[in-house]
Amino acid sequence: MRTKVAIIGAGPAGLLLGQLLHTFGVDNVILERQTPDYVLGRIRAGLLEEGTVSLLDSVGAGARLHQEGLVHHGVELAFGGARHRIDMHAATGKTVTIYGQTEVTLDLMNARKAASLTSVYSAADVTPHDFGTDHPRVTYVKDGVTHELACDFIAGCDGFHGVSRASVSASAITSYERVYPFGWLGILSETPPVSPELIYNNHARGFALCTMRSTHRSRYYVQCPLDDHVDQWSDERFWDELKRRLDQKAADEIITGPSIEKSIAPLRSFVAEPMRFGRMFLAGDASHIVPPTGAKGLNLAASDVHYLSQALREYYDEKSSAGLDFYSAKALARVWKAVRFSWWMTSMLHKFPDEGEFAARIQIAELDYLVSSKAASTSLSENYVGLPF
Amino acid sequence: MRTKVAIIGAGPAGLLLGQLLHTFGVDNVILERQTPDYVLGRIRAGLLEEGTVSLLDSVGAGARLHQEGLVHHGVELAFGGARHRIDMHAATGKTVTIYGQTEVTLDLMNARKAASLTSVYSAADVTPHDFGTDHPRVTYVKDGVTHELACDFIAGCDGFHGVSRASVSASAITSYERVYPFGWLGILSETPPVSPELIYNNHARGFALCTMRSTHRSRYYVQCPLDDHVDQWSDERFWDELKRRLDQKAADEIITGPSIEKSIAPLRSFVAEPMRFGRMFLAGDASHIVPPTGAKGLNLAASDVHYLSQALREYYDEKSSAGLDFYSAKALARVWKAVRFSWWMTSMLHKFPDEGEFAARIQIAELDYLVSSKAASTSLSENYVGLPF
Repeated sequence: MRTKVAIIGAGPAGLLLGQLLHTFGVDNVILERQTPDYVLGRIRAGLLEEGTVSLLDSVGAGARLHQEGLVHHGVELAFGGARHRIDMHAATGKTVTIYGQTEVTLDLMNARKAASLTSVYSAADVTPHDFGTDHPRVTYVKDGVTHELACDFIAGCDGFHGVSRASVSASAITSYERVYPFGWLGILSETPPVSPELIYNNHARGFALCTMRSTHRSRYYVQCPLDDHVDQWSDERFWDELKRRLDQKAADEIITGPSIEKSIAPLRSFVAEPMRFGRMFLAGDASHIVPPTGAKGLNLAASDVHYLSQALREYYDEKSSAGLDFYSAKALARVWKAVRFSWWMTSMLHKFPDEGEFAARIQIAELDYLVSSKAASTSLSENYVGLPF
Repeated sequence: MRTKVAIIGAGPAGLLLGQLLHTFGVDNVILERQTPDYVLGRIRAGLLEEGTVSLLDSVGAGARLHQEGLVHHGVELAFGGARHRIDMHAATGKTVTIYGQTEVTLDLMNARKAASLTSVYSAADVTPHDFGTDHPRVTYVKDGVTHELACDFIAGCDGFHGVSRASVSASAITSYERVYPFGWLGILSETPPVSPELIYNNHARGFALCTMRSTHRSRYYVQCPLDDHVDQWSDERFWDELKRRLDQKAADEIITGPSIEKSIAPLRSFVAEPMRFGRMFLAGDASHIVPPTGAKGLNLAASDVHYLSQALREYYDEKSSAGLDFYSAKALARVWKAVRFSWWMTSMLHKFPDEGEFAARIQIAELDYLVSSKAASTSLSENYVGLPF
């Protein structure tokens, strides 16, 4: 089999890249080691920047999003017992859309199916080869038979643990990492959200986040020790702890219910440089991870594949490799700004067990300043709604 | 001897408070353990916010400042080999004035002398008493004789190591502190500044600052290990190290010369709460210390004594203690914002020996964002020129 671009990974990054390339007339094949149901079963964040929404629209995968997504104009910061609203729309003219990553993936899968593009699911032992040469290829095993996909370029969209980055010689990669000393315990419940907008809570007991998937499905998180296990957290304990970290009004008004999903996720900042290795390009989590505070993960994957698809379009339409040569630097410039923002939001909102009272007071001083300064709240807003591509 | 307000310390905080009270008709006496020459010999920063300048004007101590001070409209940030100017005036409509703290002190001393107000220098064993009662007093020894100054209120303007805060029961104070793992090695030289505005340099070898006292007197700093001693730093070594941390243009253009002062200062953030203990009020360094990055120390002392003088005026003119009751909370709200700003500038610009490459890249990402975002550079500017009183 032969294609122009072999895409490894059928998460939102790979699927969106495939659709963008398709609209540019660039032939591509996606290889995914899991089944479609497995991919759709992964619960992830769901806050889309306008740039991400535009990309989904541009590939015809935005219809349901506009129907079911919740458009948010602001966000709330709670600390010292009070809530403060940041009007992001007033500050930037932009909004964000609440729409689950699982739904994005499903819409992209359906778009790909409708366009009859080739995707190989349950592909075992996917391995990129020869991307240091002009003749890269990807091998994989399907139903016990080894296949080879010859291509012009490989796009590694297979996440943090994927084979793409792992296939590169360690000496060719510089990586930067911070692992935070806590996790997020999250639950999903069929209850109406406590507030129509997100509430980010800084509390002496630890961070808490009130978010949602829809008007009838809530997503709540509390910061927890990294070595906690979900079994230690009954629904009752979760709701009790959450309420203790909310302002009085939210604690009084929150509607609780049985959890339909409960999990603990670690928080990590990670960047591997560069994002290009010969004829292989990394995009999304394969190259960088952000903590979920600020919801940048999916949106960064979208800007990566936007840059990459434009560079590939330029290569095929204009016979210029300038875009490809500049891809890594261009993507990383935006990546680092989002990594900084996510690190900053995380640093300002969480309780750091090894830091003293000075650090806790600095957080409150920063939040106090943030909600009192137009410039500072505009700065938060412009990052939250997404810096321009 | 009896007065309304006994002021401990004849640094700029105590002297400015004394002059402000005098303009409000509130009798005061200053007690200082050092000689005037000793006080004037202390080299300190010299960047005044407009609010500080206005206070000096209001007590008639601004004439020389307006003649000799350098008004700055912007500041430069240097990183990654390039300099980026932040136009603070365009962002905020405000400026800062370069004028040495020593000069401020001298002008205030002269104003005090001209008004024939009582100051006792070389006062030994200054001790505040009975500030938990309605009859506070301060004792001191002068020329071997013990004196007592009876008063309505005591103002502790005697700095971090002063007797005022030390006289309060430890259980009545909550303090917050961060000591930074490096110092500033600074020199003063009779050379024209390398650039008309300040240059804050983030460099892999460590922070460097190009500042000045006048058009012909430069002040330069390099970050150094805390246990370094000035004897290890010949002028030649200092200039070599400084040049390595500057952008090429600055390194080429800098004019070096013999140092006329050279010293190493530690960097510390410190806040003691509250700022009132019965009839004793703390102001300036007696209550809080900031690292010099951002030049907030003197300006915070000025806003403290502004609040305190207004509260005392209200007490005597309007027979209301509301201002005095609110002094600590009001002053601390502004203090913490400046403590946060100074901590943030320090964190963004210095090399932290115990932090890894992730932290260094986050600094660059933050600086990159800062110089590219109007909101973020406005936020820096509004803090740098001074948040409103």
